[in-house]
Amino acid sequence: MKLTIIGVGLIGGSIALKLRENHFVDYVYGVDQSEQHLAEAAALGIIDEGASLEHALKNADLIVLAIPVDSARKLLPKVLDLVQEHQTVMDVGSTKTGIVQSVQNHNNRSRFVAFHPMWGTENSGPKSAIADSFTGKAGVICDREHSAPDALKIVQKAAEQLEMNLLYMDSDSHDVHTAYISHISHITSYALANTVLEKEREEDTIFQLASSGFSSTVRLAKSHPEMWVPIFRQNKENVLDVLNEHITQLRKFKSALEKDNYDYLEELIRNANKIRGLLG
Amino acid sequence: MKLTIIGVGLIGGSIALKLRENHFVDYVYGVDQSEQHLAEAAALGIIDEGASLEHALKNADLIVLAIPVDSARKLLPKVLDLVQEHQTVMDVGSTKTGIVQSVQNHNNRSRFVAFHPMWGTENSGPKSAIADSFTGKAGVICDREHSAPDALKIVQKAAEQLEMNLLYMDSDSHDVHTAYISHISHITSYALANTVLEKEREEDTIFQLASSGFSSTVRLAKSHPEMWVPIFRQNKENVLDVLNEHITQLRKFKSALEKDNYDYLEELIRNANKIRGLLG
Repeated sequence: MKLTIIGVGLIGGSIALKLRENHFVDYVYGVDQSEQHLAEAAALGIIDEGASLEHALKNADLIVLAIPVDSARKLLPKVLDLVQEHQTVMDVGSTKTGIVQSVQNHNNRSRFVAFHPMWGTENSGPKSAIADSFTGKAGVICDREHSAPDALKIVQKAAEQLEMNLLYMDSDSHDVHTAYISHISHITSYALANTVLEKEREEDTIFQLASSGFSSTVRLAKSHPEMWVPIFRQNKENVLDVLNEHITQLRKFKSALEKDNYDYLEELIRNANKIRGLLG
Repeated sequence: MKLTIIGVGLIGGSIALKLRENHFVDYVYGVDQSEQHLAEAAALGIIDEGASLEHALKNADLIVLAIPVDSARKLLPKVLDLVQEHQTVMDVGSTKTGIVQSVQNHNNRSRFVAFHPMWGTENSGPKSAIADSFTGKAGVICDREHSAPDALKIVQKAAEQLEMNLLYMDSDSHDVHTAYISHISHITSYALANTVLEKEREEDTIFQLASSGFSSTVRLAKSHPEMWVPIFRQNKENVLDVLNEHITQLRKFKSALEKDNYDYLEELIRNANKIRGLLG
């Protein structure tokens, strides 16, 4: 099987590495605006050749769209214009309603499978790609009924090769859940970084003191705006809904402290501790 | 050297394990309200014997107070009442102004060294103790000028055995910095857990979807109120100050989204990205 990765970055690169390692694919085309990323990806053994979109589409069995969600939404209709009945296209985006809408009336809609691997790091670019990234993580397929059975099967097999746990839901539900589980964490982390950068003028002190707790909480704040602004934009309503709730929850902690109501503070913390049971 | 650990939990237990492994101490007394923790600590080789406070103090060279900061503040004066000139007492608390004030006029003040190892996990109890926990982490000694030179030296040596990087500051500065670097992260994490628990009624979905990003952001929300309510209480003013700033920062993200001002959203994220340079 031949694979085309559009966007040879963290996610696209990690997928290519793993599928090649498992011999699920035997040739990988890379498509990227950045010549440097293509050169790095070739040097790292992620792709066999950098190619034009047209060339890479013509020869591939499976096409993975691994670019920011705004670009993916624009490019997907053009990709579907070019694919044949035997080809399968999947994306990896963190929002789904927008991209699915962009091709809902497309003649080749059934060749597309909306996919979201629930894994990422704050790093980007082919050098950050890791073959075993997806092992044991959730992989969500959205609106499966709009994909052709054979296209669905190829994506299921690819996810199996990536050692992911497959879940199925509709795009709208996906975007609600990811607002809770992923998008709000990023906003919290960005805001926390900005808080510390605003209030803590002694930068050396941050560096020297930063505990593992702090580092893990602000880790996501290193994530790039090129990826995250489009996600927040496409999932604006859900993200705002959760963000409002989060501010309300923070105000409860503020109120408990201001009023020296430590019983209430304890109650808030005991409630938060319930997350332990859910995360294991 | 003989060691007494008052509170054989995560921190006390980890210190004992490492200092014993390095042969820095050759006998460890454990003092704990929980008989079960004492039995577990003995079974795990963390302590040689569980003892009464009086007995454990009489025979130890170094006494480590590793209990919640409210209890530590109450117990420290009593411990100093009982110690002799050749003995050294250190604490491990996450707030320092309160505990230092509690003994500022004590006759044996100079036998006490205010210490804060910048490490912890969301777990507690002797079973969570790990010998190598502190390697490469910051260890803060506060108000060193109020400790006797020989007491200071013993704590410095212990910190060296724990492989920590020593820093020195006054208690008030310490409490300001830890509000930024550690305490606010916990409040954010608790509030985020409560947000998700409030909004996401499908608990199975949380469990199945939870990405590594989410898990690392809410990891701290598993931390127990017994430890954290007293910390927030003792550091109330600093924590409120940072919490207010954090809510202000979150409101900026909210405003950017509500107004569809994606240039501003990008600017907020680019600013947060600067944390990368500080955390490495």
